Amino acid sequence: MAACCAGRLPDPAPRVHPSVSASLVRVGIVTTFSADRSYAESLDAADPLAAFRDRFVRHDPELIYLDGNSLGPLPARTQARIAGVIDREWGEDLVRSWGHWMSTPRQAGDMLAEHLLGSAPGQVLVCDSVTVNLCKLAWSMLDARQGRDVIITDDDNFPTDRYVLEGIAAQRGCELRLLPADMDEGVSAEVLAEALDDRTALVSLSHVAYRSGALADMAALTDLVHRSGALTLWDLSHSVGAVPVELDASGADAAVGCTYKYVNAGPGAPAFLYVREDLLPQLRQPIWGWFGQQNQFEMGPRYHPAAGIDAFATGTPQIIGAVAVEEGARLLGEAGLDRLRAKSIQLTSYLISLADEWLAPLGFALASPRADARRGGHVSLRHPDAWRISQALLRAKVIGDYRTPDRLRLGPAALYVRFTDVWDAMQQVREITAEKSYADIPAEQSRVT
Amino acid sequence: MAACCAGRLPDPAPRVHPSVSASLVRVGIVTTFSADRSYAESLDAADPLAAFRDRFVRHDPELIYLDGNSLGPLPARTQARIAGVIDREWGEDLVRSWGHWMSTPRQAGDMLAEHLLGSAPGQVLVCDSVTVNLCKLAWSMLDARQGRDVIITDDDNFPTDRYVLEGIAAQRGCELRLLPADMDEGVSAEVLAEALDDRTALVSLSHVAYRSGALADMAALTDLVHRSGALTLWDLSHSVGAVPVELDASGADAAVGCTYKYVNAGPGAPAFLYVREDLLPQLRQPIWGWFGQQNQFEMGPRYHPAAGIDAFATGTPQIIGAVAVEEGARLLGEAGLDRLRAKSIQLTSYLISLADEWLAPLGFALASPRADARRGGHVSLRHPDAWRISQALLRAKVIGDYRTPDRLRLGPAALYVRFTDVWDAMQQVREITAEKSYADIPAEQSRVT
Repeated sequence: MAACCAGRLPDPAPRVHPSVSASLVRVGIVTTFSADRSYAESLDAADPLAAFRDRFVRHDPELIYLDGNSLGPLPARTQARIAGVIDREWGEDLVRSWGHWMSTPRQAGDMLAEHLLGSAPGQVLVCDSVTVNLCKLAWSMLDARQGRDVIITDDDNFPTDRYVLEGIAAQRGCELRLLPADMDEGVSAEVLAEALDDRTALVSLSHVAYRSGALADMAALTDLVHRSGALTLWDLSHSVGAVPVELDASGADAAVGCTYKYVNAGPGAPAFLYVREDLLPQLRQPIWGWFGQQNQFEMGPRYHPAAGIDAFATGTPQIIGAVAVEEGARLLGEAGLDRLRAKSIQLTSYLISLADEWLAPLGFALASPRADARRGGHVSLRHPDAWRISQALLRAKVIGDYRTPDRLRLGPAALYVRFTDVWDAMQQVREITAEKSYADIPAEQSRVT
Repeated sequence: MAACCAGRLPDPAPRVHPSVSASLVRVGIVTTFSADRSYAESLDAADPLAAFRDRFVRHDPELIYLDGNSLGPLPARTQARIAGVIDREWGEDLVRSWGHWMSTPRQAGDMLAEHLLGSAPGQVLVCDSVTVNLCKLAWSMLDARQGRDVIITDDDNFPTDRYVLEGIAAQRGCELRLLPADMDEGVSAEVLAEALDDRTALVSLSHVAYRSGALADMAALTDLVHRSGALTLWDLSHSVGAVPVELDASGADAAVGCTYKYVNAGPGAPAFLYVREDLLPQLRQPIWGWFGQQNQFEMGPRYHPAAGIDAFATGTPQIIGAVAVEEGARLLGEAGLDRLRAKSIQLTSYLISLADEWLAPLGFALASPRADARRGGHVSLRHPDAWRISQALLRAKVIGDYRTPDRLRLGPAALYVRFTDVWDAMQQVREITAEKSYADIPAEQSRVT
């Protein structure tokens, strides 16, 4: 817990970070980085997405929310839509609403496909959780590669991904290969290439790393995997809504993702899954539920999976969460993923520049890729007291979060975070760390971080 | 489609049905059945649960809702609670709410356990769907009976139960034995006894049959199964909240159930699962997700299941649905399952008496057990034109539903249905059938029934 950690200091950064100026040029502003708040104000004034901030419910105008990468805030239209679904569709129309609710998971999936996933319709379904969807897809993809018995993921992949694959490997007698990932930079193509062989059935990776925000090159890695004859299963939980995802163009075989982060669909909203159309007939998912049954309400004696992506449905879908997914996808689509990505790069570059300027001398080091093209929508900063600093920030109404072992994770979501929010938040980190005003906070972590 | 079906007429019923008078005596009213509406009015006047009807949102005072066995109506307190969770816990407190949301699935499970399931705390978890929970439990229970390779269910069990077991049998190379069930009376102990042997690992049955409402003797059948060395997995979807369930007392090994029927938790609300405490250490469920991990937020390298029922959690739980489960369980607990069951028997007995009186001459036959103790909370009536009659009833603002092959299913839930509702609904069935006012409705069924 020594305050000194000079060995972890980042590379010295130029005052004008190349990626910052590049992204500024992209949206038509040429200016020079400055650590003055007025600079952030000028960026806010020029932000074409600034008005989207008012599309969210905001109870406390002083709160700075940099944790939308964990739970996105509540869009006002989502609140109204859910209230309507509950009062009119459930309360008034009752069971009759199933006539249209039956289509909601597909509709929500197609909206994600269109606005966020670079997918043609009919390949995305909103259902279950990421965990359950990983299980359905991994199981069926292994079946589609009979004779191969190796699953590959990386040792720093999100826990549920690693655990699900560990379980399936145990149940099927497969070997699970854990690639050594760089905690800050992610999985390299070289490391993956070395692990692939003709025993490999499935490679499952995250598009954006949950801790560092490292962004994988989906197309290049998928190509590498395909050359070994294996299939790819991507987890988009930390990328969907934050960076443009091009599922069809990348050649990815299948994907899962959650909707309660950048899609802003609320706590425990249903996840989604994607299967590339030509692969659909080859995959038979293992949870044979009545919602995946052809002619469901004939309630026939044997299971006959529905055609296409519908076969991946299991039980009764949660409707309230699925309509929140629709609203979330619509709102992001309105802002436009390209504009969101441009602003997101500006925000994270700006955050990194301030960290270089203010926090590096206080023992912080960047724990995310420095190159814009290698970074998703959030940034991690390393500090021995990261846990206590994150808790002191909470007291100061700046919400980020802590991730093991010593990361302060900050997610300035482009849809509603201002440059001045980033400035104010970083100023708080600087003050709290410089003054050690977190000294009274216990070092033991709470159950939920 | 002949109107004549004399061969299907029920046994002649006495004017005063023994079970009706028995249940009336039980709640302190001694009266004689009459087909006059005034009789229903007198029963309503004496109903100790009458006030609970006003605890539900009601948009159309003329609507008669007899389909709470498919989707329960919206309790007013649930609407307010969800609005609060969305506005304050999600909208205002944001990610900080996970501090208490983490406990919601267990809390909701313990409330179901206490009020509805006859279970000590720590054995019930609200999570996933019935389909996914069946899969988790059946898989882990088969693992716990190594060396046995037979799964038993019945050929009239709810589709998702049959399909899930069919899938697992295919994946594990087990034999699935489908007991011949009587469509109206359910599974007999004799038929089950004949199928059990020392190869049997698991028997999975519904407590109340989805079509006929036949109520199984959980304790007796569980005992039978245990004597063969196998385990029992009960589906409580059509019994929870409708009849008292005594999981601990029955010796049942495990159970699943849904919450959007009699628990009134809304479309796609999460299901629950139960595992008897002493069995918990023997079961290892197959979907290894981060919410089932010990010390979840340490995000450790290997999966180590949490202790107890928490190991059956998978991915991020849906919170809005889980709080609706809490509210639903609380409301039923306030009314009291014994009082609800007494009124439910009165309601269904009364419905059957009216069917005997009015509908048998029109070609209807009872398709549910006649004995009160063998019947859950809903009643099915057989008629060759059941589909079209159910649609004509919808037009007349009476909501029941149709079930294959020729059943009109009516669920007078005791928490909010009046005896006059039953009288009015049956009067409508009588008129519609006598006048064939459904003649204009196409015989082909819609996608959702």
